[in-house]
Amino acid sequence: SNPASTTPTKVQQLHVYEINERDRGSPAYLRLSQKTVNSLGDLVPFSNKVYTGDLKKRAGITAGICILIKNEAEKKGDRYEAIYSFYLGDYGHIAVQGPYLTYEDTELAVTGGSGVFEGVYGHVKLHQIIFPFKLFYTFHLKGIPDLPAELLGKPVPPAIEVEPTPAAKSCEAGATLPNFTN
Amino acid sequence: SNPASTTPTKVQQLHVYEINERDRGSPAYLRLSQKTVNSLGDLVPFSNKVYTGDLKKRAGITAGICILIKNEAEKKGDRYEAIYSFYLGDYGHIAVQGPYLTYEDTELAVTGGSGVFEGVYGHVKLHQIIFPFKLFYTFHLKGIPDLPAELLGKPVPPAIEVEPTPAAKSCEAGATLPNFTN
Amino acid sequence: SNPASTTPTKVQQLHVYEINERDRGSPAYLRLSQKTVNSLGDLVPFSNKVYTGDLKKRAGITAGICILIKNEAEKKGDRYEAIYSFYLGDYGHIAVQGPYLTYEDTELAVTGGSGVFEGVYGHVKLHQIIFPFKLFYTFHLKGIPDLPAELLGKPVPPAIEVEPTPAAKSCEAGATLPNFTN
Repeated sequence: SNPASTTPTKVQQLHVYEINERDRGSPAYLRLSQKTVNSLGDLVPFSNKVYTGDLKKRAGITAGICILIKNEAEKKGDRYEAIYSFYLGDYGHIAVQGPYLTYEDTELAVTGGSGVFEGVYGHVKLHQIIFPFKLFYTFHLKGIPDLPAELLGKPVPPAIEVEPTPAAKSCEAGATLPNFTN
Repeated sequence: SNPASTTPTKVQQLHVYEINERDRGSPAYLRLSQKTVNSLGDLVPFSNKVYTGDLKKRAGITAGICILIKNEAEKKGDRYEAIYSFYLGDYGHIAVQGPYLTYEDTELAVTGGSGVFEGVYGHVKLHQIIFPFKLFYTFHLKGIPDLPAELLGKPVPPAIEVEPTPAAKSCEAGATLPNFTN
Repeated sequence: SNPASTTPTKVQQLHVYEINERDRGSPAYLRLSQKTVNSLGDLVPFSNKVYTGDLKKRAGITAGICILIKNEAEKKGDRYEAIYSFYLGDYGHIAVQGPYLTYEDTELAVTGGSGVFEGVYGHVKLHQIIFPFKLFYTFHLKGIPDLPAELLGKPVPPAIEVEPTPAAKSCEAGATLPNFTN
């Protein structure tokens, strides 16, 4: 936090969608456990597309790795330790670490950031809409100056059928963040 | 840190034990270097059980990965870069990154947290009691409100023979943190 | 950050060189994608030597992993997600996470630290001089007390031909940080 800024401890909410459009070869499920059921030892590097919460702009990508911790048969899902970043073009990136459970929502820690996110801390709520293709994130961010309005559009409520605008999907001029990460 | 809280820069100590009870398939030593001696290229995902420092309550688990950096023959051990989280049930989690040396104690950085640990920073001392099955950690935490008393029981001094209470080991009612992570 | 310290939000610049002297078996390129072109799924654990910015002292090592995110044929390079630490002997370590692009400079987030870097936040500029053997880093650090003078020598401007002093390369007495990491 920065006591010299005007609002160092204000909580700022930031919403983004992470969508796997199946065009990045992601995820790469590495079955290094060599077992037939998902097991500790498996690693899952991944990178998906990120859109602003209002689904009007392509923002960038996620990039990182999920470490399979435990298959939970009774919950028909898996626990992962997730370590990744959200890239938002010229605005910089946010690094996170925490649990990813395929069967319920979780909270991850925000561990740092660059650009407008330098010095950030807080947490992010991960809400899975369609496993593992569509997720909605609500960041609760502290320690940074007021975020640019472009990032703070009114979020589309998460639902199975929501999609980015066609202009955002095709990364048209005006439908991306500046120098969106790809 | 949060200047609005009463004690933002107070250091709070938190003690936990990490114990490998050999029932989680951990660690998964991935000999990806394809060499006969531990070498850069090897990766070691792991997840062990975590108990409160007083050994009276099952707290949760660790979850993450050790990256083999260097075999140190003269020290009969290895240097790893460790990136993992401590999960403590409803209280949230603490993310850490730093050195794990199989032959001596180390200090890791606390990089973030969720729940009662949101906004946390500081470091943690890793003290190995029995490689690689029993470790004692002393966190030095800043930036967070006063921790709940349940986490702050008087720690059992680390020693080879110490064990969690039978009730904690069997996760009996009253012998776990709320919704302990498993 | 620590409001009780005298200069909690002052930015301190720290310069270091990372040099691969090809004597640590690094990097270990793990072609886990099993594809012929670098692809998501590939992992690259690494550990190189670190020198002070004035190239007069061996400081320690880097240690961590690069996660291949995307081969960018048109840029003749790759995007990685990099998660690693800089070890500086008795002074402690700095953990970072962010983008490593083989074809242009980047900024990574500082996610934490130990020793004199405990509680650190900020970012680091990664400037590649010779891929992947010689890199120059400029840290912008906040939240920590004044760094020791030994770390703040006038940096040698990055150039292809710069080298650590012979004394630093051979880790002679007086040409290393105290208990430099190796």
